[in-house]
Amino acid sequence: MTAPTIAAPASAFPKLKQRPWTKYFTFADREPMVLESGAKLGPITIAYETYGELSPARDNAILITHALTGDAHCASHGPDDPEAGWWEPLVGPGRVFDTDRYFVICSNVLGGCQGSTGPASIDPETGRPYGARFPVVTIGDMVRCQERLVRHLGIDRLFAVAGGSMGGMQALEWAVRFPDMVRGVIPIATPARSYPQAIAFNEVGRQAILNDPGWRGGDYYGTPGPERGLAIARMLGMITYQSDPSMTRKFGRELVSGRFDDPFSLFTTFQVESYLHYQGKKLVNRFDANSYLYLTRALDLFDLSRGFGSLERALERVQAPMLVVGVSSDILYPVYQQKEIVAILQAQGKAAEYAEIDSPHGHDGFLIDFPQMEPFLRAFLERIERAGV
Amino acid sequence: MTAPTIAAPASAFPKLKQRPWTKYFTFADREPMVLESGAKLGPITIAYETYGELSPARDNAILITHALTGDAHCASHGPDDPEAGWWEPLVGPGRVFDTDRYFVICSNVLGGCQGSTGPASIDPETGRPYGARFPVVTIGDMVRCQERLVRHLGIDRLFAVAGGSMGGMQALEWAVRFPDMVRGVIPIATPARSYPQAIAFNEVGRQAILNDPGWRGGDYYGTPGPERGLAIARMLGMITYQSDPSMTRKFGRELVSGRFDDPFSLFTTFQVESYLHYQGKKLVNRFDANSYLYLTRALDLFDLSRGFGSLERALERVQAPMLVVGVSSDILYPVYQQKEIVAILQAQGKAAEYAEIDSPHGHDGFLIDFPQMEPFLRAFLERIERAGV
Repeated sequence: MTAPTIAAPASAFPKLKQRPWTKYFTFADREPMVLESGAKLGPITIAYETYGELSPARDNAILITHALTGDAHCASHGPDDPEAGWWEPLVGPGRVFDTDRYFVICSNVLGGCQGSTGPASIDPETGRPYGARFPVVTIGDMVRCQERLVRHLGIDRLFAVAGGSMGGMQALEWAVRFPDMVRGVIPIATPARSYPQAIAFNEVGRQAILNDPGWRGGDYYGTPGPERGLAIARMLGMITYQSDPSMTRKFGRELVSGRFDDPFSLFTTFQVESYLHYQGKKLVNRFDANSYLYLTRALDLFDLSRGFGSLERALERVQAPMLVVGVSSDILYPVYQQKEIVAILQAQGKAAEYAEIDSPHGHDGFLIDFPQMEPFLRAFLERIERAGV
Repeated sequence: MTAPTIAAPASAFPKLKQRPWTKYFTFADREPMVLESGAKLGPITIAYETYGELSPARDNAILITHALTGDAHCASHGPDDPEAGWWEPLVGPGRVFDTDRYFVICSNVLGGCQGSTGPASIDPETGRPYGARFPVVTIGDMVRCQERLVRHLGIDRLFAVAGGSMGGMQALEWAVRFPDMVRGVIPIATPARSYPQAIAFNEVGRQAILNDPGWRGGDYYGTPGPERGLAIARMLGMITYQSDPSMTRKFGRELVSGRFDDPFSLFTTFQVESYLHYQGKKLVNRFDANSYLYLTRALDLFDLSRGFGSLERALERVQAPMLVVGVSSDILYPVYQQKEIVAILQAQGKAAEYAEIDSPHGHDGFLIDFPQMEPFLRAFLERIERAGV
């Protein structure tokens, strides 16, 4: 066991958000971690935040795992913390993930840009940012880092792991790789492996970044970087996170008025375009393009069956009850992909259930439709509690 | 009436395909055409091909309208023409659009890059290619050019207009703008107006072109131009022309073998990525990026109701029987968008019918599922024939 050190890592990403609530766990500093690819990486720092108190029995910890552009700040830390988190309505005193009752842990993934080791981190061998020399990481690698963190916090078994999208992939990996370390698993809006349409969308986004002259082979730190490329990737992402009906409802065919007198201009702007441009710029202000490349690649490489021969064989390892959640209108990871997981687990006689968010919001439903999610999440956590194992 | 001249126009697009079958109709050479935007354009050349013979009564002409990256070559011209067209199985002797019976006309759209006036054409005022100074054109403008062409050919009334995707939009415009000039209309896989999700996909593709340093504000003729940007736009387009199940069936999660020994590389290539890259490059070899910008903008601006107050009011003008065709798995223009048109027409007591291609191929079904299309296309043409009006 390497000696854990607690320190903020050096990062070349200038938009790293410094939060007083962030803690850092550094490991693999003496002996590098062997990644799923075989590449070695070390030291590794994982940035994380915690909410509530760990019980004396250390049996009340819930790990919340974030999506592609998320971070460790899943919720505000109370009155002194004005910044809402990405799962704010679900995490806090009295909420589903009740911080009066549970010890909630949320960490920034390996490969990310918000405090955890990623392509913007300084490579200790060269003293320069890794850039595109950072090794490819997988969802499995992210989860193995989380396991190190959880053990570092003195926890042998998690009460639950829950997350949506890329966070759902992490929840599934936990269930398969560390079956005896989780009592309940809640993967939301996620497949058991990336399907080609999702890979294709990711590749278009990556190409937009790689084709931006600002990318410079990944060595753009200290310059503005591939801002437009990242914005384009985000614009595309935002389409896949929504749905045809929700976009029609939100934007219709309205033009942005006042910007151009002539609606018949090549650069006429429909409201939907203006919205996408805004979302693109917004991401550029908080996310590192290289992390976008690496994390979308991790999404593509996600395949629970890898190393097990088949999805069935992989899921045979699962011990914990699982609540798999889909969003009816999800076009990125359509509900058949969640149902597939549940069908296999149920055929194996395992305690798996499927719940659907009936929503027009598409994939983003797991970040929007909280009132619908609350009852089944709450009921599932109570069942785990009662099961008492 | 301006005097029509027949000549190939000057174009700066080096990949313009010179075909011996192409004819050119030039008009608006004395007085420019006033476009839907109010801008004036002239002279205008429309490249077209014809198949079969016009009957003495001039009542057997069928206009076939092409999609975004199509051209006037919808089919081979016989044994001397080895190049198959984009609707090859439907057009020819004995085929649905039977060239022993019908006089088939197919023209390259205004704004295109295969012989018709577009952004690569030489602006007679400056002697240089229009580039981004080309006026924005609409589907309505394309159709008004076709109307000029049809009249130039001595035809007062078309037996039918048929086309898919952007070609379907043109068919709809014909039905509404020139109701007494068409006896039957076949819009396939098209909406009555572009919805925001489709606009959003187009905008991402355009941004990829605009962000390519090779675009140079549109004045890239004589240089390679925004090749990677256009390829990215095409990659995205290809995703929207297919479907999740068809991509899964075709590509699965297979990697391109042999290219990288290490599957865990940032540049590991899944088969689906390799396919998209190939499709991107293929389009670059035959299409002008500026035309891509202008034609996708025309798609966005497409709204049959413009100028009529509502879709109902616009469709009230339709006189001809209409066969509206959808593809069950189309994610770009989902079937509800075709059914909407038919529902309005039927409520108005018009002879409108809906036929669905039951296919996993997505939007591209209209370029693939010919055996399914043949029977209902044939039956519809026979009904028009029998109706005899």
